[in-house]
Amino acid sequence: MCALFKIERRDDFSETVARLSEIVGADHVLTRIEDVVPYGFDATAALKTGAPCVVLPHTVEEVSAVMRFCREAKLPVVTRGSGTGLSGGSIPVPGGIVLCLVHLNKILEVDSENLTLLAECGAITKAIDEAAHPSGLFYPPDPGSMSISTIGGNVANNSGGLRGLKYGVTRDYVMGMEVVLPDGEITWLGSKCVKDVAGYSMKDLFVGSEGTLGIITKVLLKLVPRPKARRTLLATFDSMESAAASVSKIVAQHIVPCTLEFLDRKTCESVEAYAHVGLPTGVSAVVLMETDGHPAVVEEEAVQMAAIAEECGAVSVERAKDDAHAIRLATARRSAFSALARVRPTTILEDVTVPRNRLVDIVSFVEEVGKRHNLQVATFGHFGDGNVHPTILTDEKDEDEMSRVDEALSEIFDKTIELGGTVTGEHGVGLAKKPYLKRQFDKSSYALMRKIKRTLDPDGLLNPGKIFDLED
Amino acid sequence: MCALFKIERRDDFSETVARLSEIVGADHVLTRIEDVVPYGFDATAALKTGAPCVVLPHTVEEVSAVMRFCREAKLPVVTRGSGTGLSGGSIPVPGGIVLCLVHLNKILEVDSENLTLLAECGAITKAIDEAAHPSGLFYPPDPGSMSISTIGGNVANNSGGLRGLKYGVTRDYVMGMEVVLPDGEITWLGSKCVKDVAGYSMKDLFVGSEGTLGIITKVLLKLVPRPKARRTLLATFDSMESAAASVSKIVAQHIVPCTLEFLDRKTCESVEAYAHVGLPTGVSAVVLMETDGHPAVVEEEAVQMAAIAEECGAVSVERAKDDAHAIRLATARRSAFSALARVRPTTILEDVTVPRNRLVDIVSFVEEVGKRHNLQVATFGHFGDGNVHPTILTDEKDEDEMSRVDEALSEIFDKTIELGGTVTGEHGVGLAKKPYLKRQFDKSSYALMRKIKRTLDPDGLLNPGKIFDLED
Repeated sequence: MCALFKIERRDDFSETVARLSEIVGADHVLTRIEDVVPYGFDATAALKTGAPCVVLPHTVEEVSAVMRFCREAKLPVVTRGSGTGLSGGSIPVPGGIVLCLVHLNKILEVDSENLTLLAECGAITKAIDEAAHPSGLFYPPDPGSMSISTIGGNVANNSGGLRGLKYGVTRDYVMGMEVVLPDGEITWLGSKCVKDVAGYSMKDLFVGSEGTLGIITKVLLKLVPRPKARRTLLATFDSMESAAASVSKIVAQHIVPCTLEFLDRKTCESVEAYAHVGLPTGVSAVVLMETDGHPAVVEEEAVQMAAIAEECGAVSVERAKDDAHAIRLATARRSAFSALARVRPTTILEDVTVPRNRLVDIVSFVEEVGKRHNLQVATFGHFGDGNVHPTILTDEKDEDEMSRVDEALSEIFDKTIELGGTVTGEHGVGLAKKPYLKRQFDKSSYALMRKIKRTLDPDGLLNPGKIFDLED
Repeated sequence: MCALFKIERRDDFSETVARLSEIVGADHVLTRIEDVVPYGFDATAALKTGAPCVVLPHTVEEVSAVMRFCREAKLPVVTRGSGTGLSGGSIPVPGGIVLCLVHLNKILEVDSENLTLLAECGAITKAIDEAAHPSGLFYPPDPGSMSISTIGGNVANNSGGLRGLKYGVTRDYVMGMEVVLPDGEITWLGSKCVKDVAGYSMKDLFVGSEGTLGIITKVLLKLVPRPKARRTLLATFDSMESAAASVSKIVAQHIVPCTLEFLDRKTCESVEAYAHVGLPTGVSAVVLMETDGHPAVVEEEAVQMAAIAEECGAVSVERAKDDAHAIRLATARRSAFSALARVRPTTILEDVTVPRNRLVDIVSFVEEVGKRHNLQVATFGHFGDGNVHPTILTDEKDEDEMSRVDEALSEIFDKTIELGGTVTGEHGVGLAKKPYLKRQFDKSSYALMRKIKRTLDPDGLLNPGKIFDLED
C-alpha cells in the first residue's frame, strides 16, 4: 500500500513481472512501491495514480517484445519519457504497466549534407540542438521543459515552444520515425527526402497522437542553418490592449520575429520575486521580442519593433546590450511557470489558443473569469501565436476552491472555442483536456479519430483513455 | 461507343442520371460521349478510360448529396479538378462517375490579421497567390501547373513546386479543410490557430491522401509576408558533378535559396528549340538559382552563389539584370515539360526523389539506364530538394519501345529506393506509381495504409484502386 495512491495489482502479477524481466532484465523492471511512485504522475497538477510495474527497455527489440507480451496478456501500457507532460498523458492506467523509454537516448547521426538528425526517442530535446550546433545547424522547437523533456515525448505531443511564430512546432521538423505498433511490429514511417508523397503520410498521423497509436522509438529530424545574429528587446505596457496593438502592428509590417512572448502583471511580479532579473513590476504587460537571422535584417527589425512599441504607447523599451543581457531577459519569460508554481500549492497551467487577432479577447476574458470566481489567475504566453497560458494558482486540497477552478476552466474553454480557438495549443489532450475535446470537434471528426484508434489499436491497450474514451 | 475508349454503363444508368440530375440539375450531369471524353484522362501519359457520367456540383451540399446517393447505389466516384495530375489520380473507374469540382471555385476570405486564406477546392492555385498579393502576402507553393491546377487537387496530392527548398510544399500551408466523408457527412478538420494539438491531426492524414479518404471541398491556407526582393542567376556547367558540387557548397554555406533547379543537356536543347530564351545548349547542366527575402541578404547571397558556382568550375554565370530578364530565365525552367512534350508523341514524366546528397547518383543512373535501353531520356528538376524529373520521350503506340520504357522505369525506381529515396516526391502515386509503392514500404506500414482506407471508406467507393488495391 502506498500513502500517495493505491496501486492495483492483477492476479497474474508475479508471472507478468517474471515475463517482463526475461525481456528487459530483472534490474529494469521496477515493482517496489518506493521505486514506482515517481512514475505515478507527470507535471500536470492534481493528477496521479499508481502503476504496479515500471519497465525500462534499452532497445527497440525490447520495446517490441514487451508490446507483444502485453498484447497477449491484455495488459494496458502507458508510455513515458521524462514525465514533463502538462496534460496527464503519462499518468498510469490502474493495473497496467508503465513503459519508460528514457534509456533509448542515443543521438545516432547528424547528417550535415542532408540537414537531418536521427535520435532515439529518449534523447533530451536540448541535447538534440546541442548535437546540431557544431555543424552550424539548429533544431528550433524549444518547449519550456527542453532541458529535461525527451524528443519522443515532444513528437508524440507535437510540442510547441517560444519560437513557434517564426519556426513552427515539432511537427514541422519530423521527417520520419521508427514506431512499434500495438501488435509489436517495428515499422518505419517517412524518409530522408525533403519531398515525399508516396502513400498516406502516416508519420503525420503519429505526430501529436500522444502515444495512443504506436510507440515512437526513433525520430528523424530536419535541421536548419543556425541564425547568425539575434536581438532581444523587452517592452512594458500599461494595458494589455496597447501590448496587443504593437504585436498586431509588427505582424502587419511583415516582421516575423522568432519570439513574441508576453507576461501579465501577476506573472511579472511572481517572476521578479523568484528570479530577481530586474523586471518592472507595476505594469500591465511585458512583451519579450526576439528577432534572429542575418545581422543586417536583425538590426533593422529590432529598430522597427522598438519604434512600433513606442508608437503604441510602451512605458519602456529595453534593448539587450549583449548576449548575457539577452539571456537574462529571456530567462524572465522561461521562469514564468516555475515562479508561479511557488505562489500556491497547486498550479494549473492551461494552453488555450485562438486565432492571433483574438488574443486580447481571451486574455481579458480569463482575467474577468478569475475575478468572478475569486481565483488567483496569472497569464503569460506566446503572443504571436495566439497561444495563452492562463495559470490558476490554487490548492487541490481545497474542495470549494477546486470546484470554482473547474467552473472557471470550463468557461475559458467555451470562450476559446467560441473565438475559433483550440483547447490545447501545445500541451496535448491527455486526461486533463479530454472532457473538453468534444465541445471543440463536430460529431463526424470526433468519430473519425475514434475509428482510427480502434483500427490501429483494436485491443485498446496503448495509452488507453488518453485523448478520448472509446465508449461514452 | 467511343473511338478513344470504351465506356461501360451499368444497367441502372438512366435511373442514376435521373437521381444525380435531381441533385445538381440536369445541365450539370454530362453523359454524351463528346462531353465525357475529356474527363477520361489527365496529364499522365498512356492512361485513359471512360466514365459514363460526369457530375459538376456547385456547392458542398450538392457534393454531400451526390456522395450519399453513390453510397446507397454502390457507385464508385472519382474526383477531379482541372485534370493536371501526373500519376493518373483522376482517371475514371469503369462504370463509376466522375465528380468534377471546378465550379466550387470561390476565394472566400483573405484574413490579413491572421495571415490566412480560405478558398473552395476548385479555386486555381495561381488565383490564390494573386488574391494574397494586395495584402503584401504570399502563397509559396508553385506546382508547374499552377496557372490551371486547382487548390483542392494540390492539397489532395500535397503538391510540390520550384520553391520547395526554402518554402516547403503544400502540406506546410494547410491549416484546415472542409471535407465530405465517404458517407456524405460534411466535416471540418484543423483551425485558424497556428498551434493546435487537439486530437489526431486528421487534416494531415487527408493532405496527400489523393482523394481516397474524403472529398476536400474547402481549404484554409497559411500565407506568409511577400519577399521584398529577389535575385535570379543562371549558371552552366560542363558536368553534372560540378553542378552538384556547387549546390552542395551552397547548402553547406547555409544559404537557403528559394529555387535551385537544374536542366540537363537534352532538356536545355529542347527548351531552347521551343522557347528561344537564349539558353546555352552545348553544356551538361544548367542551374537556375533564385534567392528572395530582404534586399541586403538577397544581394549578398546572390554574390556568394555566383562565386561558389565559379569556384566549382561553372562555364558561365549569368545574373538577371532586371525582373523581365529574371522571368525569362525562370521561364526556361518552367517550360521544360512543355518543351520536352513536343519531341515525341508520348512524354513520361517521373518524380523520383532521393536524399539531396544522392542526387548525382540518381541522375547518372537515369542517364545510364536510358542509354542501355536505347531510350531518349531528359532529366530536370529540383536540385536542392533531391527531386528529379527523369522524362522519357517515347511513343505509346510502339509496343517494343514501351516494354523497354517499363524496364527502365522499374530499374530507376529500384535504384531510388536503394538510395533511400521515394518513388514520388510531388506527383502522387495514383495509378502510375501503384506497382512500385510496395517496394518502398515495409509490410507493416503498407498494411497500415490499407487499414486506414478500409476504416474511412468501408465500401471502397472513393477513388478506388488509387495508391493501392485493397486486395492483392
